[in-house]
Amino acid sequence: MNPLLKDIRDNPLLWLLGFVPVVFVVARLEPEAQTLLFGLSVLAIVPLAALLSHATESVAAKTGDAVGGLLNATLGNLTELVIALTALHAGQYMLVKASIAGAIVTNTLFMLGASFPLGGLKYHVQEYNRVSARVQAGLLFLATVALLVPSAVSEVDADVAAAFTRKLSVALALLLVVAYGLGLLFSLRTHRELFASAEHDEGDETPWPIGLALATLAGITVLVALVSEVFVESVQKAAEAFGMTPAFVGFIVVALVGGAAEMASAFAGARKNRLDLSVGIALGSASQIALFVAPVLVLVSYFIGPTPMDLQFWPGAVVMILIATLTASLVTNSGRSAWFVGVLLLMVYLIFAMTLYLLPPRVL
Amino acid sequence: MNPLLKDIRDNPLLWLLGFVPVVFVVARLEPEAQTLLFGLSVLAIVPLAALLSHATESVAAKTGDAVGGLLNATLGNLTELVIALTALHAGQYMLVKASIAGAIVTNTLFMLGASFPLGGLKYHVQEYNRVSARVQAGLLFLATVALLVPSAVSEVDADVAAAFTRKLSVALALLLVVAYGLGLLFSLRTHRELFASAEHDEGDETPWPIGLALATLAGITVLVALVSEVFVESVQKAAEAFGMTPAFVGFIVVALVGGAAEMASAFAGARKNRLDLSVGIALGSASQIALFVAPVLVLVSYFIGPTPMDLQFWPGAVVMILIATLTASLVTNSGRSAWFVGVLLLMVYLIFAMTLYLLPPRVL
Amino acid sequence: MNPLLKDIRDNPLLWLLGFVPVVFVVARLEPEAQTLLFGLSVLAIVPLAALLSHATESVAAKTGDAVGGLLNATLGNLTELVIALTALHAGQYMLVKASIAGAIVTNTLFMLGASFPLGGLKYHVQEYNRVSARVQAGLLFLATVALLVPSAVSEVDADVAAAFTRKLSVALALLLVVAYGLGLLFSLRTHRELFASAEHDEGDETPWPIGLALATLAGITVLVALVSEVFVESVQKAAEAFGMTPAFVGFIVVALVGGAAEMASAFAGARKNRLDLSVGIALGSASQIALFVAPVLVLVSYFIGPTPMDLQFWPGAVVMILIATLTASLVTNSGRSAWFVGVLLLMVYLIFAMTLYLLPPRVL
Repeated sequence: MNPLLKDIRDNPLLWLLGFVPVVFVVARLEPEAQTLLFGLSVLAIVPLAALLSHATESVAAKTGDAVGGLLNATLGNLTELVIALTALHAGQYMLVKASIAGAIVTNTLFMLGASFPLGGLKYHVQEYNRVSARVQAGLLFLATVALLVPSAVSEVDADVAAAFTRKLSVALALLLVVAYGLGLLFSLRTHRELFASAEHDEGDETPWPIGLALATLAGITVLVALVSEVFVESVQKAAEAFGMTPAFVGFIVVALVGGAAEMASAFAGARKNRLDLSVGIALGSASQIALFVAPVLVLVSYFIGPTPMDLQFWPGAVVMILIATLTASLVTNSGRSAWFVGVLLLMVYLIFAMTLYLLPPRVL
Repeated sequence: MNPLLKDIRDNPLLWLLGFVPVVFVVARLEPEAQTLLFGLSVLAIVPLAALLSHATESVAAKTGDAVGGLLNATLGNLTELVIALTALHAGQYMLVKASIAGAIVTNTLFMLGASFPLGGLKYHVQEYNRVSARVQAGLLFLATVALLVPSAVSEVDADVAAAFTRKLSVALALLLVVAYGLGLLFSLRTHRELFASAEHDEGDETPWPIGLALATLAGITVLVALVSEVFVESVQKAAEAFGMTPAFVGFIVVALVGGAAEMASAFAGARKNRLDLSVGIALGSASQIALFVAPVLVLVSYFIGPTPMDLQFWPGAVVMILIATLTASLVTNSGRSAWFVGVLLLMVYLIFAMTLYLLPPRVL
Repeated sequence: MNPLLKDIRDNPLLWLLGFVPVVFVVARLEPEAQTLLFGLSVLAIVPLAALLSHATESVAAKTGDAVGGLLNATLGNLTELVIALTALHAGQYMLVKASIAGAIVTNTLFMLGASFPLGGLKYHVQEYNRVSARVQAGLLFLATVALLVPSAVSEVDADVAAAFTRKLSVALALLLVVAYGLGLLFSLRTHRELFASAEHDEGDETPWPIGLALATLAGITVLVALVSEVFVESVQKAAEAFGMTPAFVGFIVVALVGGAAEMASAFAGARKNRLDLSVGIALGSASQIALFVAPVLVLVSYFIGPTPMDLQFWPGAVVMILIATLTASLVTNSGRSAWFVGVLLLMVYLIFAMTLYLLPPRVL
């Protein structure tokens, strides 16, 4: 039996794939039913993201450790990248930036924060590889500094020419991509023994044959792009209908939808006392978005967006990213966890979510 | 002999109780002698706070570990709570907020900072339970984030409706109380073995019989409330007379007066090489004020104050709380101390005190 | 053979001494050739700084550990002090402040950051004394708080009287010097055994006889002062000619020139797997500038400058110092290093350098 079909049969999450055709039909027949389209596209993106992540891992498993790690590291957040590219193409820079910031914060606070109690309620105290956590937290910290500077400088002087922010953003984007590459070189090649446990735990699901995996990768990416278009178009109207602020939608809803597949893996790892896996996915994913997805979007915006995008974020978002990174650094410093550590992370996330939910829309 | 009288005979600090009736007599005869009344009420509150803390510990000792810990944790800062409630009732929100912020900063920087050299001049290097310190520092960090957000958001947009700040403050207050409760559950029940040494050290003084303890608790609370009224009324005038800014009075003087009893215990612990006790009291007290006293004041303000109180602090106070929390986190991370560590904490405290002392009054 | 001449023969860096007379000749003959004078004075300061640092160490080696440590600790940044005094005398406060901030950031991020890969490319993982690193990071953190407060307060209220900032700056300067002195007492006397490895590694070069060392110290200091005068006068014009902002010149160029000699020692230590030496020089030098050079300049400005100098820095500089200190704290916390840790530090430094380079001049 085709392993793809077998996977679909065994994994109830993938049954949501039925919503994919529904989205396209409804989008054609009822283009004005924005709230419905928003709900359907969310339901369709989640299983597509799960398939995409499985296909990436299968290709990675076939190509050997170094190339595989590289593939995993660059395509691991393909869903987020495709959604953001669609929003970029539509000129919705506010949504793009909110979803980048939101993905960083959601991965460090919510994904990590929920993993700890999920594991901690079963296991009294859990341990994990703190070297790996430290490197990821270090990369995240670097990215936070890079995002902080353009916002801080233009805070100080509102008249700073947009040209300055744009030039600086491109330079920072290049620097972040280089740092990301050096981080991969360090963790996959020169010092891979320090990351041992986290790497070793990864081969959880049976990999698909390479042909199927590549075909799935290509096909699903196209589908995600098509569904994302519906999602991005409907999200603002739907937000209004639900009484949510655009900030809340970009920061919380998009981040949760885009990261659903990875969350499923991280939570499963925590329940199996393989916290290395959970911490690796959560912090790795956050640093990947900060050091790879965000810079790529800045650079790509010169080709596909109506105008170039810069790295200047809403100051509140920068504060949230800064706090999330600092919290993750302090928390993962000890390499041990109990349920309460996760509660602290979730509470910080809740504070941000509540603030964004209550925030009057015009502030952002 | 009555244990209460015996305690009073043995403890010179309690001889200050003689000032309690003096305060009431002077307040009746010379209601305009504000500077005198301020001095007398300070001298009267200090021994009352010491008695209150002893009574709380006695009740806690009789009721078993879990309930006792809970009692200690909720009534440990009763003096600060009563003073703040009196100020709240009088509509002096600036004083309430300054005293909350000041109590957090004074406990983390001054109480902790003075304990280290007091112990360190007798013992070369001292060790303490760093797990316990980490949990308290984590709770403090959470509270700091909660206090930071409303101020940061309203910084960004001065026109944000007060309604937003008020709604957010209530939500944050509830969240902080829940976090505080979960922290107690963690340290008193599910993972109490991690906090062993700190708990075990606590039974220092001979506990009173339960009847006497309860009666003292009730009686002294009423006395504190009555003296606080004189204190709150006289504090502003006295500050002017002494050439102090209101910020300095609320932040430094009120915090030192309210925390005098706990400081006595923390310092005694440090001199006896029981640094677990000192660190526990200092950080525990700070997190109790941030996660219990402050939220309770916000919620109670809907019933007893002239208008509801929010959690939006003067930005300078937020910066100081943030630095104090970060400093405490970094310092207690190692679980070891020598005199110089305390000097660093005291220096940071001194920087804040000097700044507030020199600050022109209208800034706050 | 005279040990001074022998040193000059053996150390190619010292051959640059030939530029010292050239500077004076050109300054007399072509006083308007600012760009040339700038380049020549840079080339002349570097070897002078190296000699100064060797002479200081020789005097220190002869006077015994405690006094020697003190000498090293106070004269170790004599070059930076002399350059800053010259700029102060010329009333160039912006340059003085930028060079203080730049020296702190350059030492913590660039000197430390380049030492790690220089050692890490030869040695897989390197270890160093983390107690010593922690004390230096603690002192740096204290200084950062002291620099943060005046800027933060005057941010909040632009109308705060300059008198307030000036009074506060003097008080902070005194406090920092006291903290610095207590830090020396701690590391050189009461707890010197904790710093063992770092101290022991220091005696690298053969010390000179005391007479020669003292004469060199005096003579070279005068020469540095004279060359600094040319440097300070030409730096602004040269910056314009090179298309650099004054912020970039003060922050990056002056800091690199002033610290060149120490960098040579730190890098040599890292290549010899003596990372204690590198970390000690980098963080020790940064905390010395923050807690000794900066306060001395504030106090001295009352006597030699046209008007007193305060400790209020450009907010961007404060953010950079804060991030640099925090990064150094987090990084040195583990006491172990590999090349990638240094890359992270260098990247943060690069972010700051790029921002300052691109920044429109009028912002600062």
